[in-house]
Amino acid sequence: VPDHKPRITVEQFCGLWPPDMPFMQFYRFAVEQIGYGDARVRLGYDEHHIRPGGSLSGPTIMTLADYTIWAVVLGMTGPDYRNAATSSLTVHFLRPAPAGDLIAEGRIIRLGRRLAVGEAAVYADGETGGADPVAHVTATYALPSARESADSGSI
Amino acid sequence: VPDHKPRITVEQFCGLWPPDMPFMQFYRFAVEQIGYGDARVRLGYDEHHIRPGGSLSGPTIMTLADYTIWAVVLGMTGPDYRNAATSSLTVHFLRPAPAGDLIAEGRIIRLGRRLAVGEAAVYADGETGGADPVAHVTATYALPSARESADSGSI
Amino acid sequence: VPDHKPRITVEQFCGLWPPDMPFMQFYRFAVEQIGYGDARVRLGYDEHHIRPGGSLSGPTIMTLADYTIWAVVLGMTGPDYRNAATSSLTVHFLRPAPAGDLIAEGRIIRLGRRLAVGEAAVYADGETGGADPVAHVTATYALPSARESADSGSI
Amino acid sequence: VPDHKPRITVEQFCGLWPPDMPFMQFYRFAVEQIGYGDARVRLGYDEHHIRPGGSLSGPTIMTLADYTIWAVVLGMTGPDYRNAATSSLTVHFLRPAPAGDLIAEGRIIRLGRRLAVGEAAVYADGETGGADPVAHVTATYALPSARESADSGSI
Repeated sequence: VPDHKPRITVEQFCGLWPPDMPFMQFYRFAVEQIGYGDARVRLGYDEHHIRPGGSLSGPTIMTLADYTIWAVVLGMTGPDYRNAATSSLTVHFLRPAPAGDLIAEGRIIRLGRRLAVGEAAVYADGETGGADPVAHVTATYALPSARESADSGSI
Repeated sequence: VPDHKPRITVEQFCGLWPPDMPFMQFYRFAVEQIGYGDARVRLGYDEHHIRPGGSLSGPTIMTLADYTIWAVVLGMTGPDYRNAATSSLTVHFLRPAPAGDLIAEGRIIRLGRRLAVGEAAVYADGETGGADPVAHVTATYALPSARESADSGSI
Repeated sequence: VPDHKPRITVEQFCGLWPPDMPFMQFYRFAVEQIGYGDARVRLGYDEHHIRPGGSLSGPTIMTLADYTIWAVVLGMTGPDYRNAATSSLTVHFLRPAPAGDLIAEGRIIRLGRRLAVGEAAVYADGETGGADPVAHVTATYALPSARESADSGSI
Repeated sequence: VPDHKPRITVEQFCGLWPPDMPFMQFYRFAVEQIGYGDARVRLGYDEHHIRPGGSLSGPTIMTLADYTIWAVVLGMTGPDYRNAATSSLTVHFLRPAPAGDLIAEGRIIRLGRRLAVGEAAVYADGETGGADPVAHVTATYALPSARESADSGSI
């Protein structure tokens, strides 16, 4: 792997979406790390994320994984690709997610010219890297073309 | 098809999750119809659902589709199966979803003994049934066993 | 829907792949119909398709569905798009497929500029259109750009 | 991880399906390794696997990945679970697969009581473990219940 330096910093990444927008206030993401090909993001607990039965909702899990894999993609492409949009996502729910913070660990599967594919394992707080994720997600992102990236201006 | 009568009414279905829980206040579902093998649900617009760029977020779309296909499954199995849990979900995002209400139309693909599989097309308000959904979702649900259903008590 | 006429005929479609190539001799497809947005293909039985236990193999089912949805896409785009390539596929196996012919019924979910998404239900012979498919498949296809299509010459 | 010993040997695994059945003669699998939670399988080249354009067909890739993840599952459960059946599979095709042998590296995502989920990366010969797989697959397997396993007799 000739290039290990991420193309975006955590600070740049967190500046892409305004923190005062309602979406970002509802999903309290803490981006812990972005590398060239991987990323780790924590989602702060909120009672709105609880579904009947007391576990975290599936959408909450999917949102975190989607955001994390998007960070992975931007870590390999940079802020000019912030318009990369999720085109498909497959999630497997593996066990109930206990109420509390969630951590997603994402990595690239392949960065192509027009599409990027990545995956993420989602863990309950304190269980990262273990054998018992609460969910596994793969997702694809349509990459803006070079022209579109150039047109979209600087951050 | 020998049995066309749904096994759950819209009223019973809407009573399964308490309307005062934060999750249900955030996602304002209006269940328009549940049949034996299909269902239609509207999601009321909320500014929390808007992602940067002004379209509705992917998780919002996935949440609506998941809820709708769950209604399809309960329409074929009844309230004793309310513990049916999503085990996997695949979504294709087809175009940006304009700010406004969303409507999902779901139908069963197959009801098995342990698993149910369904699909949903998600439309912008006023475009249902047309050729231009904003997303398409397939999802699988693990069904509680007969014993588990019996143990879970009445609604 | 302003355009109901398919952009490729069954004869044109069947001429895209040489019938004497080993792949096509192994998978004996009979294209029964291609419309503007749907297609139906039969796969002739072959003992090579049987897996232990006596049912048809999963790959056999996936192959037929992939080929059928590709026909759907070409029915909307025409022979210039014959280089459309499957970029992802999700299959749900719903019940064992009995030894015998299989029939897939495909339809478009959305034709975009760069990606097409379609789905197919796969049936045992004599059960098409019924409530009991053996499998359900969704698949996406990367479309060649206008320039690439123009460069690829005539059939 | 308290238990590192696989529950099935390569020899036992290869005895599960008769080598003289047409399916196994068409797909020449060489199981290189089965561990407790991972497996590696090679697929020998055959001209029947070539699709128009000269690359290996998608079904060939899916077949290899499915077989490999099934080996992963049996490596954690043992031969009594040989009736574990694929219930769903999602594949992302990442680039054309050159004519030649293919190698799949599979690993478990989660082994549950009723379902197992695994993934595999598929590589061209000589490129395993690198950053450029030709495909990525996730698949789920319905596990036979303890009673069903007991009834199914010994190998």
